[in-house]
Formats: sequence, structure tokens, C-alpha cells
Amino acid sequence: MRTLKLTLAFDGTNYAGWQRQKGQVAIQQVLEEKLAVITQEAVTVEGAGRTDAGVHALGMVASLRTTSTIPAIGLLKGLNSMLPRDIRVLELTEAADDFHARYSAVAKAYEYRLIYAEVGLPTERLYNLRLARPLDRQVVDRCLEMLVGRHDFSSFEAAGSRDPQADQGRGAVRRIFRADYRLAEGEELTRAKFVFIGDGFLRHMVRNLVGTLIMVGRGKRTVGEFAAIMAARDRSQAGPTAPAHGLFLRQVYYDPAQVDQAGQGSFSANGC
Amino acid sequence: MRTLKLTLAFDGTNYAGWQRQKGQVAIQQVLEEKLAVITQEAVTVEGAGRTDAGVHALGMVASLRTTSTIPAIGLLKGLNSMLPRDIRVLELTEAADDFHARYSAVAKAYEYRLIYAEVGLPTERLYNLRLARPLDRQVVDRCLEMLVGRHDFSSFEAAGSRDPQADQGRGAVRRIFRADYRLAEGEELTRAKFVFIGDGFLRHMVRNLVGTLIMVGRGKRTVGEFAAIMAARDRSQAGPTAPAHGLFLRQVYYDPAQVDQAGQGSFSANGC
Repeated sequence: MRTLKLTLAFDGTNYAGWQRQKGQVAIQQVLEEKLAVITQEAVTVEGAGRTDAGVHALGMVASLRTTSTIPAIGLLKGLNSMLPRDIRVLELTEAADDFHARYSAVAKAYEYRLIYAEVGLPTERLYNLRLARPLDRQVVDRCLEMLVGRHDFSSFEAAGSRDPQADQGRGAVRRIFRADYRLAEGEELTRAKFVFIGDGFLRHMVRNLVGTLIMVGRGKRTVGEFAAIMAARDRSQAGPTAPAHGLFLRQVYYDPAQVDQAGQGSFSANGC
Repeated sequence: MRTLKLTLAFDGTNYAGWQRQKGQVAIQQVLEEKLAVITQEAVTVEGAGRTDAGVHALGMVASLRTTSTIPAIGLLKGLNSMLPRDIRVLELTEAADDFHARYSAVAKAYEYRLIYAEVGLPTERLYNLRLARPLDRQVVDRCLEMLVGRHDFSSFEAAGSRDPQADQGRGAVRRIFRADYRLAEGEELTRAKFVFIGDGFLRHMVRNLVGTLIMVGRGKRTVGEFAAIMAARDRSQAGPTAPAHGLFLRQVYYDPAQVDQAGQGSFSANGC
């Protein structure tokens, strides 16, 4: 029995999310189906987390156990030749027996992409949230500073949705290592993104944070109100859930040393 | 009777191109249908050029004549509310009586986007051509230098496809003002683009140029062979037609002074 680690990227536009849902196509299910064909056995793929319907990934990690003796490179090539073009395996490597994509993860990075334009470019519409005007950077940065550290994020959690298995006695407390707002100036458009690195994220937490940060950045809530929303531990206080299509699972970390270095990069032209 | 100038952006993925084709949906046709509903009259929209099936636009220009008295801003908002999300009107302004999107144009800019990656990110797949390894910049630049100026581009023209109306006695001679290869270094991916600004482009010319430049940049043709291909005035000598999905009509110029300044910008983060 081997344990394998897969690093995946996907375009979430046409999927119900990572996890299998009744009557909808999930990324996990597509992977398991193709792996079953290749390995000739039933395979369960464990993801580092569940992404919502429509959320994209640049570096999702999954693990699986198999008796197949096909070399890793053969599995990678086989999978990519069978998978639809909107799911790609970027890496496939042998892992330690006790490696589990979810339980071994020490942190995850998400980014949320924004475009500032009165009328958006159609070729950007699937992977960014368009806002007519830039957010007020100063107030956004002050809110983001508040997020860093260990906090109860109940105010930003989808109601009644916590996975008891993943809870590990933490309740709604999560530790945020970095929370950045990065702006890029282009020739014609202006774009920005939020980057969050944390030891875990509650369901809809990033999208609820972004929805609330947008309200503050537009002057519809004050920085003080943002602090009060956090302190309230009450979902009904926060802003709306930002749409899924701007959100990317960027990376999953398994080495604490990597987390320390993470997110030092500035906004790069490739949007990663 | 008013003459109007529309600046449009579109995602060409799901269209047969700009021009109406039998049994396929074209951008021109979708625009004309929506304009007919708004203005209550039959409207013909003239595009600055015909884009192929699958080619995108950041700044296509079209003109039309109408007796409608709806203000320009009302037409713009009405159109954008009725058009599918993959076509957007960026600007709609009154134009001089003799303005014609095609005949008044003095130059056009195209860009062709490349991504260098062994396995491509699915969220980039619709708008870039992926190549496993970067092109050799030095030889590509030497070929691009040869393109600038007035040349017969028969070798890069789709066979038997010239539009006699658009020919204006030029045959296959076109003037290229700029031909650049711009590289952007990102954190994880490398991407590049070709930018071409010229007084006109033959059918498939940009895609045939890119297909041939890729061969040179990969070492499959020499710079000398590229020169010979150009001189041959024979389509069968050049490389394959690069796929449509990497190509963007970026801008149409109506003012010669604008062309002189054009393309000075470096590779920008927004990819424009």
C-alpha cells in the first residue's frame, strides 16, 4: 500500500466544489473515477479542504492510498490525459504512510481577486470580482491587521456548517498568519487581491471576510464597526458573502518553516 | 441619422468570430439583434475587422448608423443589460457622419499571450497558449525586428482568403509599426506575449506569425530561415497557425498620432 500526494489546480466554474454532492459533479468525484480506471481499484481521494462550488484552485493538495504499482510519473500523465481540461495534476509524489492531505496540513493560503472597472473585460469575468471603484486601502489595511493572530471567527462562519471532524476542539478559533491587500497598477485596469494565510478557515470564512472588507473599503462600515463585527461572534453582523468566482485556494502547507516564509512575495504579473 | 462608435470587449471562446456565419453565433449578429430591440429598427454594425472564431477582444471598435434618439449612455447601459456576459460595450460615443469602424481605422494592435509551464493552470487555459518551455528571446527578437516596416506578408496569409474590399490595392503589403516580445516573470509561472501594431493584418496573419516565431524560438527554424520564409511570399513555407484562444484584438487606432505613441508600455500586471 502506497500513499500518494497530489497537487492539483482547477477551474471551479463548472463544479459543485471539491466534495461529492448529490446530483452535481464534484472535483473529488471526477478524480476518483479516473483513478479507479487507471489503478483498477476503488480509490478514495482526501482533499486538504472542501472548496465551495465555483471556487478555483492553484495548489489544492489531496492524498490517497493505493496498491497500484504504476510509477508516480505514469499516474500523473495518465490522470492528466483522462481528466477534463479544467482539472490538472501539477505534481504527484510518494508520501509517508501517515500523510493525510487534511490532517497533516499546517496552513492554507487563499487569495481573492478583484478588478476595478466600470465595465469589466469579459476575459476577466470568470476569475475576478469586479468593483466599479477601488477600495480605500488605508481602512482595509487596518482591518486586515486586526485579523492576524488567533481569533474567534464565528462572525465570518457560514451558519451551522462546521465539520465536527475538522474542528479538533478549536471551535471557531483560527490563527491567521498573514492577511494582505495587494494592489497592482496596470495600463488600463486596476486590480487587487486579498491574500490570507491561516492554520484553517471556517466554511465561507474567506468570502465573508472579503464581503465585509469590501463594505469597509467602500465606506459603508467603519474600521471600528469591523472590530465590533469580529468581537460580536455573530454571523448576522458581518457583510455579505463575496461570490465564489473571485476565490482561489492558492497553496496548502505541510511544513511549518514554509509558513513562516510564506506570502512575502509582492503582487506578481502572473496573479499568483 | 446619427453615427455611433462602439468600443467592445469580448470573450471569443463561444463565438464563431466577429462576422455572421451560417449556423453559428457571431458577435456582430448578437450586437445587431440587441440593438434592433433597443432602437426598434434594423441596425447594421460594421466592425473594424473580422476576428476569427475563438479570438478575444479588449478593444474592438464598431460603427453604426441609426435614427434612434436614445442618448449614448442609455444605449450603452441598455446594450450591456441585454448582452450576454461575454460581450461588453466599454464605450459608446457619437461619431462624425463619415466615421466607419473599418475604413477610418489607421492601425490595429493585437497581442498573443503565452504561458510557460509543464502543466498549465486551468484558470489560464482559455486565454493563453501554453508552451512547456520559454522561447529563446534573442532569436525571437531578431525575427521581430525584420517584421517592422512595409512588407509583403503573403507567407503569413491564410490561403485564398483576402477580402477585396479591404484590399485597397495593397495586395499582401502591410506596414508593421511595432512587433514586440514581452516577458513577465512571476512567482511560479512565466508568461510572455507578442504585441503587433500595424496598419492592417491579413487573415490569420498574427496567428501564422506567432506559429512561425514559436518554431524559431524553439530552435526548429533559424533566424535566416525566418527571413527566407518572409521573402518566399508562400504560405506553405511558414509555421502552423497558432491557436485562436491566445489572441486578443487589443486596440483600433483612428488617430495617426496615437499610433506613434502606441505600444510604449511595458508588460503590465493586468495583461493589457
